Amino acid sequence: MANDSGFPKGKYPAKAHAKKVADYIVKNGGDKNGVLYLEGQKQRMIEDNDEPVPFRQRRYFYYMTGCPMPECYATYDIPKDKLTLFIPPIDPEEVIWSGLPISPEEAMKTFDVDAVLLTTEVNPYLADGKLTSQTMLYAIHEQVSEHITFLNFGDKDFILLKQAIEIARVVKDDYEIALIRHANAVSTAAHIEVMKAARTASNERELEAIFLKTSIEQGCRNQAYHGIFASGRSAATLHYVKNDQPTAGKLNVLVDAGAESNCYASDITRTFSISGKFTPESRAIYETVLQMQNECIEMLKDGVLWDDVHAHAHRVAIAGLLKIGILKGDAEEIFKSRTSVAFFPHGLGHYLGMDTHDTGGNPNYADKDPMFRYLRVRGTLPAGSVITVEPGIYFCEFIIEPYLKDPKHSKYIVKEVLDKHWVVGGVRIEDDVLITDTSYENLTLTPKSVEAMESF
Amino acid sequence: MANDSGFPKGKYPAKAHAKKVADYIVKNGGDKNGVLYLEGQKQRMIEDNDEPVPFRQRRYFYYMTGCPMPECYATYDIPKDKLTLFIPPIDPEEVIWSGLPISPEEAMKTFDVDAVLLTTEVNPYLADGKLTSQTMLYAIHEQVSEHITFLNFGDKDFILLKQAIEIARVVKDDYEIALIRHANAVSTAAHIEVMKAARTASNERELEAIFLKTSIEQGCRNQAYHGIFASGRSAATLHYVKNDQPTAGKLNVLVDAGAESNCYASDITRTFSISGKFTPESRAIYETVLQMQNECIEMLKDGVLWDDVHAHAHRVAIAGLLKIGILKGDAEEIFKSRTSVAFFPHGLGHYLGMDTHDTGGNPNYADKDPMFRYLRVRGTLPAGSVITVEPGIYFCEFIIEPYLKDPKHSKYIVKEVLDKHWVVGGVRIEDDVLITDTSYENLTLTPKSVEAMESF
Repeated sequence: MANDSGFPKGKYPAKAHAKKVADYIVKNGGDKNGVLYLEGQKQRMIEDNDEPVPFRQRRYFYYMTGCPMPECYATYDIPKDKLTLFIPPIDPEEVIWSGLPISPEEAMKTFDVDAVLLTTEVNPYLADGKLTSQTMLYAIHEQVSEHITFLNFGDKDFILLKQAIEIARVVKDDYEIALIRHANAVSTAAHIEVMKAARTASNERELEAIFLKTSIEQGCRNQAYHGIFASGRSAATLHYVKNDQPTAGKLNVLVDAGAESNCYASDITRTFSISGKFTPESRAIYETVLQMQNECIEMLKDGVLWDDVHAHAHRVAIAGLLKIGILKGDAEEIFKSRTSVAFFPHGLGHYLGMDTHDTGGNPNYADKDPMFRYLRVRGTLPAGSVITVEPGIYFCEFIIEPYLKDPKHSKYIVKEVLDKHWVVGGVRIEDDVLITDTSYENLTLTPKSVEAMESF
Repeated sequence: MANDSGFPKGKYPAKAHAKKVADYIVKNGGDKNGVLYLEGQKQRMIEDNDEPVPFRQRRYFYYMTGCPMPECYATYDIPKDKLTLFIPPIDPEEVIWSGLPISPEEAMKTFDVDAVLLTTEVNPYLADGKLTSQTMLYAIHEQVSEHITFLNFGDKDFILLKQAIEIARVVKDDYEIALIRHANAVSTAAHIEVMKAARTASNERELEAIFLKTSIEQGCRNQAYHGIFASGRSAATLHYVKNDQPTAGKLNVLVDAGAESNCYASDITRTFSISGKFTPESRAIYETVLQMQNECIEMLKDGVLWDDVHAHAHRVAIAGLLKIGILKGDAEEIFKSRTSVAFFPHGLGHYLGMDTHDTGGNPNYADKDPMFRYLRVRGTLPAGSVITVEPGIYFCEFIIEPYLKDPKHSKYIVKEVLDKHWVVGGVRIEDDVLITDTSYENLTLTPKSVEAMESF
């Protein structure tokens, strides 16, 4: 029952990632004879308890090794182009309870590294002159264990390595894209199961349960993020986390959920009618959001300015809300007054990768312009980056009320038409899109037509 | 679809717990005019990420307040018998994204406390003389935030409060038992769904997926612990965590999993045939383990010495293994030589409550006697305690091999009969049992007869 759609063959390209990171460091004034040092995540215990905390590999380490195991370390000797992975030694007491761990020989076959040693050898390896040079060591601030010593190194830098990895992660290689594609395939199956279950479910938690079940049985144990399963007006709460409300009497469900495949995220949102038929108000909002998404996706290609795409989403939203009658007045004036932020308050999307909100976006949360304050990516999108395109229109009283009280905005809002739409809750449609040299590829194949949202 | 079986009505009895804890402190040389101070768990973020870590309330705090929310504090003024809960103030920025949090008025209605204040009032409350006395403050080591000040208190103790709560938690009240009963009811439904699915499933992860789905849809979002879904010989690995192996060609499945209801655990293990029919070897082992469990449960009542019950499980195991022919020789000699530890290496059970391995068990992991080293409860069981009864027989090469090589043990083991049993993997049967004044009540109603294990 595993879903292998898109799952890549071969090893995770750790060596290529290490080289890419080292190149950035050298090009940005780093030492071409330097050594990169990385630590994986440790296994922590739940406070006051003997159960381990669910393990999540540290992303910087995974990017450079492809190794998902706890308590590991790695070094990359830049001039030698040598990537060394350090794995924990066998603990005989632990074998009795947990079986045999992976051996260095098996690790060599599994991971794209040049050498595998035991973690007991990290300090000797750093100290004993096997490295080409000990002029410069690069490590990540607060990600170096206390027992590790860099005494033999002439100089140390705790900033550049992290920065280099964060920038390297923006442009994905084929292997990474395949993992995102796989996570998308599993999530698509899970979204479809949720849609099928929604008509007979009685509570949001049943929808979440189905999503998790489908993800796990198809091979994705972890979710990329805490999913949102919001029925009715709950969908207007952007960070809705409860997922425990009855669905009876509600119009629509918004599901924002994505499985994770080998540390790579998917992030998909669909909004559909519970009854199988949108009300006229819901349908009009849905069609507007779908148009926002379709037009924005069509703009995508290498070098597009994301700020422009986000602004375009607002223009489409304004045109739609004018047509529906919730807004009145001149579209360009409304755009300039930022009134549409009342209905579409968040950014159009974010980079997607090992983190759901992936690195390298350069947001400006201090931006005085409310239209751009929450946009998680600013600037141009390079080919090979993966971005979510997730426009939405919401009817959230906490967000809209201040606009209704401010004459600068309220003159554009038709209260009596707006009042018919609170029950719509909120509509968001979100896909994960790969930027290519001349265009884009939508990695999310989850149905999203009006017909599909009514016909599960 | 929520499962309300056994779910208690009314408020979690925080006041009664606070009094019980204060009584213990005063009886053990504490200050009868003292103040107890507790902090709930904080919301932490995932490292290098903007997603919160899944929240798990600190158990000491929950026991004294019944409050499941992050970032809360509590005080208990012993002479005034006044329990005060401090909840976070409203953050207007956060309301836009997450909606309104609970108000102090709602908190008063929800929790069994005497007053609700905002967390901004903790330091003023501790300082300004509203407390009966400031002679002595009791708090828990490493569970006091840096910004909290106890300057006005004459003396401070960071040991007794934790100890008092850990001992108070051993004997459960009706509300706590009802929560364990509810967690058991949901887990029973989940175990039955797993058994139904096992015949057609192709991988262990499909079984885990069904267990999680059933738990969540019936109202239990969290599992009490990382469940074990082990097919075939994987069941011999006691801490099996992978849950990702194909089930084709395997004889049996061992499922050790339990949902959590409002911070209270269930912990249930069942072992069943995948095909619907035990092999003769599997059936003989299953019947032996079931007899170990049945006889041990029958011994339970207020004041029973748990060490004796554990030893009895070994005697039943030895009798069963002699009858099967895996062991040979004199039962009492085998018992004294501890050879049965090769097949039943873990303890018979542990206290169950807010933690799966609950507080107050007084284990002695340094015990030289291998039969008792891993027994998590030592001494007598009081009425009102809840204990797991979880005998098992396993065929684990890492555990048994050293016994085969040691003439002290190997003379009792019949290798050719043993060799027929490796494929059985391991059998464990585990129930959660309430100790009463004269007897016991088994809180786990999951089927466990041989017929049930073959007839799903």
